[in-house]
Amino acid sequence: MIKLQTQHIEFSTKGNTQLVDITEKVQHVIDQSEFTEGNVTLFAIGSTTGISTVEYEPGLVHHDVAEMYHKIAPYGISYHHNQTWGDDNGAAHLRSTLTGSSLVIPFLHQKLILGTWQQIIFIDFDTRPRTRKVIVQILGK
Amino acid sequence: MIKLQTQHIEFSTKGNTQLVDITEKVQHVIDQSEFTEGNVTLFAIGSTTGISTVEYEPGLVHHDVAEMYHKIAPYGISYHHNQTWGDDNGAAHLRSTLTGSSLVIPFLHQKLILGTWQQIIFIDFDTRPRTRKVIVQILGK
Amino acid sequence: MIKLQTQHIEFSTKGNTQLVDITEKVQHVIDQSEFTEGNVTLFAIGSTTGISTVEYEPGLVHHDVAEMYHKIAPYGISYHHNQTWGDDNGAAHLRSTLTGSSLVIPFLHQKLILGTWQQIIFIDFDTRPRTRKVIVQILGK
Repeated sequence: MIKLQTQHIEFSTKGNTQLVDITEKVQHVIDQSEFTEGNVTLFAIGSTTGISTVEYEPGLVHHDVAEMYHKIAPYGISYHHNQTWGDDNGAAHLRSTLTGSSLVIPFLHQKLILGTWQQIIFIDFDTRPRTRKVIVQILGK
Repeated sequence: MIKLQTQHIEFSTKGNTQLVDITEKVQHVIDQSEFTEGNVTLFAIGSTTGISTVEYEPGLVHHDVAEMYHKIAPYGISYHHNQTWGDDNGAAHLRSTLTGSSLVIPFLHQKLILGTWQQIIFIDFDTRPRTRKVIVQILGK
Repeated sequence: MIKLQTQHIEFSTKGNTQLVDITEKVQHVIDQSEFTEGNVTLFAIGSTTGISTVEYEPGLVHHDVAEMYHKIAPYGISYHHNQTWGDDNGAAHLRSTLTGSSLVIPFLHQKLILGTWQQIIFIDFDTRPRTRKVIVQILGK
């Protein structure tokens, strides 16, 4: 019998393309539930955020990923978005649209199916600290 | 009791990285249904399209997003794809593969869970006007 | 009555941004099942992989897609990731994070709903041959 559960996790971020490892938080939601097999839909609330996976090691997390995004949409240059709102976070919006804000991950025997070196990350692209919310919705049995 | 509904929405596009706000169309499918909690899987039919989210304001929508994609895969230059088919839309295919054509969004109390400044966009990367179809599939109760 | 099935497909890859067309393998899982309507969640195990769609023709598959990724995150240059592990695959991790490792595709009448020129691809960004696993999870009826 397939069931559904909709919750969210919440946490503080520093922004500036900070990568937050949310793997344990998501696994914890499954642990606290009675689901053993199914999938979890993660959806990041906000238009300056992203969700993806990465090998969560310092080189990628603190340097390489941010440098890649810097090539694609640098902070600190002029965007039309900044002119519309007087904001300074046009780059954050562009990075978000390209990265995507939803991810669906299967689980089996109550454990997320991930590679050994594959962690789930929430990326805060905004230019200031925020409190962020990610929907964690489970479909399964 | 979990149920399933598979429909689609259809609309005309101009191409050239036009961003179409489909938030209301998707919400309307939920409004017309009896689902109150679950998720909606959006899937864009076609290999020159993308689905993502954005703050739908003129600066991003009419300028910044297109300029970002122009850096990654410019229109109007030579691609091997163009040589295979005599097409001119190699850039459109590349942008599509990078952006992704599926998005899963949870809803609760019959309302899509989105940020205040976060809209769902269909992007038509092709180089000419098209009629486009997006699958809107609901799983929930 | 909604049901759930979790399986995987496995195959050998050459790496170096090889695009593997997995459309038939995924359709085969549906063919072998009793599901007629629903969706299939694909999840690529590993942090140097990606899943997306493309028109699977030689120009894009053997040249253009790799050239786009080369602009974004070139192989063969120095990354902090490489210094952490003595690895040489920093570029592969970056391409994976940007591309995404999950995709959800609806099916109806037991057939994946895809465009005529739209195939499902697994991308192996790693710098050496691997054996790869993709979770194929079906929710539907």
